[in-house]
Amino acid sequence: MRGAVLHAPGDVRVEDRDDPVIVEPTDAVIRVAAACVCGSDLWPYRGVEPVNGPAPMGHEYVGLVEEVGGEVRTLRPGQFVVGSFFASDNTCEICRAGYQSRCVRAVPIGAIGTQAQYARIPLADGTLVATPAMPDADLIPSLLAASDVLGTGWFAAVAAEAGPGKTVAVVGDGAVGLLGVLAARQLGAGRIVVFSRHADRQRLAAEYGATDIVTERGDEGVARLKELTGGLGAHSVIEAVGTQESMMQAIRATRPGGHVGYVGVAHGVQLPGMELFFSGVHLHGGPAPVRRFLPELIELIWNRTIDPGKVFDLTLPLEQAAEGYRAMDERRAVKTLLTP
Amino acid sequence: MRGAVLHAPGDVRVEDRDDPVIVEPTDAVIRVAAACVCGSDLWPYRGVEPVNGPAPMGHEYVGLVEEVGGEVRTLRPGQFVVGSFFASDNTCEICRAGYQSRCVRAVPIGAIGTQAQYARIPLADGTLVATPAMPDADLIPSLLAASDVLGTGWFAAVAAEAGPGKTVAVVGDGAVGLLGVLAARQLGAGRIVVFSRHADRQRLAAEYGATDIVTERGDEGVARLKELTGGLGAHSVIEAVGTQESMMQAIRATRPGGHVGYVGVAHGVQLPGMELFFSGVHLHGGPAPVRRFLPELIELIWNRTIDPGKVFDLTLPLEQAAEGYRAMDERRAVKTLLTP
Repeated sequence: MRGAVLHAPGDVRVEDRDDPVIVEPTDAVIRVAAACVCGSDLWPYRGVEPVNGPAPMGHEYVGLVEEVGGEVRTLRPGQFVVGSFFASDNTCEICRAGYQSRCVRAVPIGAIGTQAQYARIPLADGTLVATPAMPDADLIPSLLAASDVLGTGWFAAVAAEAGPGKTVAVVGDGAVGLLGVLAARQLGAGRIVVFSRHADRQRLAAEYGATDIVTERGDEGVARLKELTGGLGAHSVIEAVGTQESMMQAIRATRPGGHVGYVGVAHGVQLPGMELFFSGVHLHGGPAPVRRFLPELIELIWNRTIDPGKVFDLTLPLEQAAEGYRAMDERRAVKTLLTP
Repeated sequence: MRGAVLHAPGDVRVEDRDDPVIVEPTDAVIRVAAACVCGSDLWPYRGVEPVNGPAPMGHEYVGLVEEVGGEVRTLRPGQFVVGSFFASDNTCEICRAGYQSRCVRAVPIGAIGTQAQYARIPLADGTLVATPAMPDADLIPSLLAASDVLGTGWFAAVAAEAGPGKTVAVVGDGAVGLLGVLAARQLGAGRIVVFSRHADRQRLAAEYGATDIVTERGDEGVARLKELTGGLGAHSVIEAVGTQESMMQAIRATRPGGHVGYVGVAHGVQLPGMELFFSGVHLHGGPAPVRRFLPELIELIWNRTIDPGKVFDLTLPLEQAAEGYRAMDERRAVKTLLTP
């Protein structure tokens, strides 16, 4: 089969890879219908994370079940499925508490690489959720979004306790931040403030429910947000970047007793204990337990209540994955969908 | 009047200070019935925090209302009151959300100094809670504990979401940690693990409801805790020290999706963003909003349901405050009560 492989920073190639096969009886093999490039894929692409030899890429995916192992009970070949970016058994104590991304048997799908024609998905019963039927083609981008970027934005909004009566602020106007806006609106937040300097992203944010845009960043952005919130800051802040500046902006934008939901993979971040202590905020985040939310998200997409697929503003054949990475790296695209 | 003043690290003197008077119409002046030395007083005493000129000391107190300002509505002279260590109006949006220690008009009582015969308490209506009647003498240590050390341990347990079905771990066997044990038990936790190496503190922890003692510290302590919890870690961890080691021990002792309630004033702490991200824990803490809990805590003490005053293992006249500090600094005492 064909699949994207990162050889070195900036060097993504689509090349022949071994066809995946069932290894464990709990595996499924899927034919990937759509995959995409994640903001987190840009960390190794940019050399911020080390690249250790040729690495298969991709952890977001929807597709058709091709084959299942002997112990798979809930799936059968031919079903259309959405999966999360960590395989999970969905039965252990951590999964049952809603933290499937930290399942005791968790397997990162990123090590498998779904920017490919086929993928082996471990722990298929606990990881994959079948759609009610074969989806219309126009639903596929939204279902694909559910597998990470929507699920991650949703988790951030839940972690930030977005809800009725809350003012929510969103740090980061990438795909995750934009879908954090969508999630906050769905969860009932009335006022949603987005930090953004890009007209196209501001438009999509507004479409997803943002009520205010702040173009200032860092402490200036915080000052502007405080003006908008009676000097107090937001009740709920979504952090969707993962840098020192964005984390501090999120913490400082939150009122005492408020909640920061952070999902940007924290690179080189050190949180100063004394400032955090006196901030009085709640801090929660990490790799989103997407599996917790998948059934609900699939239903919202299936009913056409939400349209998260709009974050894909570039669609390319898998063979052109390298251009998909470049476009995101150069900020010409918010998010690239790849069709195998 | 007489009051304790810190002149330099290690140099606490009881000396003549001006008698406090009503300054704002929302003030009360109280005659201090009992005060005490806080673990946080040891930071400047040890020179870890700078001492800027002679500083009145103390922020924990119970006493009798002597005089009230013209706008004080809920208190009258002669009442016995318990106060919190931040004055708060208890009416602003932040107070109503339960974060009185971050009230928009908050005044730190530490700047006033309650290790003294009298003290001016700002925002008296929002800060002080009167007891149902004059307390029996044996209740005074427990009521005094409510003003900070119990309120702080209680907040830590609430922030850690201690409750029925939860395994709670407590990092720090000082007075706050011990009262975190008491709080966790009152909140319904079944299993409570305390990290402690001191026999006397272990005994009090057991009396307050601890079920397990771990004598190892740091990563060894975490490993031992994981053995006790099926490899997962505790649901709820109380951090009551405030050092880099204790914060990391608390985070690492918490299972993914679990809660860390941290109340040790974080000195020199830097939390590594990447580790925090992948820990998947909830982090909440800061200066405890003691006022939120005071009515409930006073009732539990008044009914003799709880006996937090046992954490005072040294009682001295105010004039011997210096010895009270020394005893705590040298770990000869858990906590010193001072009688003016």
